[in-house]
Amino acid sequence: MISYKANYKDVTTVDFNKTKDALLIIDQTKIPNELVMLELDTPEEVYEAIKNLRVRGAPAIGDSAAIGIAVIANKFNCQNDHYDEFLSEFTKVKNYLASSRPTAVNLFWALDCMAEVVKNNSDKTVPEIKAALIKKAEQIRTDDIEMSRAIGEHGLALFKDGDGILTHCNAGELATVKYGTALAPIHLGREKGYNFKVYSDETRPLLQGARLTAFELFEDGIDVTVMCDNMASRAMKEGKINAVIVGADRIAANGDVCNKIGTSGVAILAKHYGIPFYVAAPTSTIDMATASGNDIPIEERNPDEVTEMHYVKRMAPVGVNVYNPAFDVTDAELVTGIITELGVAYPPYSKSLSEIMKKKTEQ
Amino acid sequence: MISYKANYKDVTTVDFNKTKDALLIIDQTKIPNELVMLELDTPEEVYEAIKNLRVRGAPAIGDSAAIGIAVIANKFNCQNDHYDEFLSEFTKVKNYLASSRPTAVNLFWALDCMAEVVKNNSDKTVPEIKAALIKKAEQIRTDDIEMSRAIGEHGLALFKDGDGILTHCNAGELATVKYGTALAPIHLGREKGYNFKVYSDETRPLLQGARLTAFELFEDGIDVTVMCDNMASRAMKEGKINAVIVGADRIAANGDVCNKIGTSGVAILAKHYGIPFYVAAPTSTIDMATASGNDIPIEERNPDEVTEMHYVKRMAPVGVNVYNPAFDVTDAELVTGIITELGVAYPPYSKSLSEIMKKKTEQ
Repeated sequence: MISYKANYKDVTTVDFNKTKDALLIIDQTKIPNELVMLELDTPEEVYEAIKNLRVRGAPAIGDSAAIGIAVIANKFNCQNDHYDEFLSEFTKVKNYLASSRPTAVNLFWALDCMAEVVKNNSDKTVPEIKAALIKKAEQIRTDDIEMSRAIGEHGLALFKDGDGILTHCNAGELATVKYGTALAPIHLGREKGYNFKVYSDETRPLLQGARLTAFELFEDGIDVTVMCDNMASRAMKEGKINAVIVGADRIAANGDVCNKIGTSGVAILAKHYGIPFYVAAPTSTIDMATASGNDIPIEERNPDEVTEMHYVKRMAPVGVNVYNPAFDVTDAELVTGIITELGVAYPPYSKSLSEIMKKKTEQ
Repeated sequence: MISYKANYKDVTTVDFNKTKDALLIIDQTKIPNELVMLELDTPEEVYEAIKNLRVRGAPAIGDSAAIGIAVIANKFNCQNDHYDEFLSEFTKVKNYLASSRPTAVNLFWALDCMAEVVKNNSDKTVPEIKAALIKKAEQIRTDDIEMSRAIGEHGLALFKDGDGILTHCNAGELATVKYGTALAPIHLGREKGYNFKVYSDETRPLLQGARLTAFELFEDGIDVTVMCDNMASRAMKEGKINAVIVGADRIAANGDVCNKIGTSGVAILAKHYGIPFYVAAPTSTIDMATASGNDIPIEERNPDEVTEMHYVKRMAPVGVNVYNPAFDVTDAELVTGIITELGVAYPPYSKSLSEIMKKKTEQ
C-alpha cells in the first residue's frame, strides 16, 4: 500500500491511480487533521479500507468496490483461456469484499455489476475480460459524477446567490466521487460563481458535519460555519438560514425520508420558521416498495459513541467559522407552563407572570 | 484546602463543613468521573472554585459566596470593638469574590445580603456580627432548599407516575443545594415513590446534560437515559416523552424564556409532537423589566468549545442508559421538495415520486 499527502483540489474521493493498477482513495479517517491518499491493490487492503470507514458514503463505497475488484482481477495470474479459474478467483474476492460492510446496498450492487461483466464475457479471453472490468469500473465512477452533477443542477435552481444554507451530516463529495448529493448544488454553485453561506450541523455522535462537511466545503473555498446540532433553532430564528438541504439513506413511496439521526428535528424547525427543507438523493435511494417511514427499521448503535469521545484531536478544520451562542430564547407561545415556587403560570403570560410577581411582592 | 471522596447520597452541592469553619462543595469539574468534596476557607480558594466552575448554577454560586464569606469573616483577627477594621476587611473580601464570575447575578445578590448584615449590625461586637453572618448564610442556603422544594411540589402535580420526561442542560440539584429547579419534581417524585423515565439531552458543547444531569439522577436512583441533542425528535416520535421540563436563565415579562442553547429547538419539537413543554424557575429569574426575548442579549462563546473536545475522559456516568439511534425518519409533510438527478419531486409525493420512478424506467 502506498500513501501520500495531497491537496484536496487535486484529488477526488475515489479514483484509479495514475498507472491504473490501484484503487486511489482519500483516507477519511484522517480528516480534518490531514489529507492522506491511499493506493490499494490487494483484497485485504480494499476490505480494510471499507470496513474501517477510510472510504464511506453509499456511492463512494460502491465506486471503491468496483475499482478495487477491477484492479485486483487485473493482476490474476491465469492463462488466457482459463475462464473458469478466473471466475473462481473473481468470485472469491467478490464475496470477501462484500463482507466488509454487511448492510451497504451500493457495495453489493457494484460488485454484482462487476460479476455480470465477467459472466457476460465468458466467451472472451482473460485479458479481454480484465479490460472489460476496468472499463465497467470507470463507467460506474463516471455515472456517479454525472448523477451528482445532475442533482447539483436541479438543486442549484432552487437557491439564490448569497443564500444561507443549513445542512446536516455529510452527503457531500466525500460520500460520492465529486459534488455529492446534498452538497452538489453548493459545490456546483461555487464553480458557477455563487456565494453561499453554509451552516454545517456538527452531527453528533460521530461528527460527520464538523469533520467531513466542514472540511470539504472549506477546502473548496466555500464560506462554511460549524455549529452544534442544538444551535440550528437559534440560527434560523436569527434569519441566517434561507434553506435546508440534506441527503437521504432511504425515501419511502410516500416521501418519508430516512436519514442521519437529527434530520427530522431540523425539518420540524424549518417548518416552524417557514424555511424550505430539501432532500437531495439519487433515485436509487427511493424505495417504492416501502410504503412509509414507519416501515423502515432504525439501527440502534453502540452507547460508547455517545459516552466516549473518540475524536480527541481537533474536530473541525483549523480556520473554519464557528457559531457558538450559549443560550437561546424560546417563544412564549411554545411554553405550556412556567413552574415557579409560587405556582404555575399559564398563557397568557403577560397576565399570569404579573399575577405571580404580585403574589411575590405581597409575601 | 481539604479534599476527600464521598457518596452522593451523603452530601449536598453546597454546605458548611461539620465544624462550620469551611465552605463544603462538590467539585463539579470531577463529575461524572469521581465525586470529590472540597473544604474551602480562604478568599483565594473560594474565588478559584467559583471562577473555575467547581461550583456552578446561579443559586449554588450565591450559596457558596454567602457561606464562603461567612466562614472567612469568622476568622478575621479583629478586636471585639473594632467594627471599622472588620468592615474594611469584609469589603475587601466581598469585592474580590464578586470578581470571580462577573456576570453571575446571584453572586452579587448573595454578597450584598451578607454586606447588609454587617451594616445592620454596626452597633454590635465583632463576635456578634460573625455569628449573624453565619446565621444569614445558613438562612440563604435553607431558603434555597425551600424554593427548590416548592418548585418540585408544583411541578410534580403536572406529571403522572411512569411518565417519560425530557430535560436539557442541568437545572438540577448540582445547580442549587438540593432538588434543583427543572429536576426538582423528579428528585421529589423519587422521594415520594414515583418512577419517572428521564431522557437527558447531552447538551453540546459543554455536555452538562451528559456529565451533570445524568450523574445526579443516576446517583439518586432515577431511571435516566443520555442521548445526543439531535435524538430528541425521534425519542418524541417513538412516544418515549410525555413532557419536557427545562430551567431558565431569564424569563421576560411576556413569557419568553432565555435558557441554554438548544432549548427553543426542544420546545418547537414538543409543540410539533403535542407534548407539554414546562419551564421551572424561581421567581428571581422572572425579569418584568424585559418586555420580550428580543431584548435579551445572547453571549457568543469561544469557538474552541465546539471544535476541541475538552472532556477527553468518559462523558457520562458509567452504567447510565444511552439512546443512540443512527437515523430518523422525517415525515413527508415536512419536506418541501426531493431533488433527484431526474428533477425535483414536490408534494403530494405519492404522485410525484411515482412519476419520477416512471421517468427512470423509461430512460
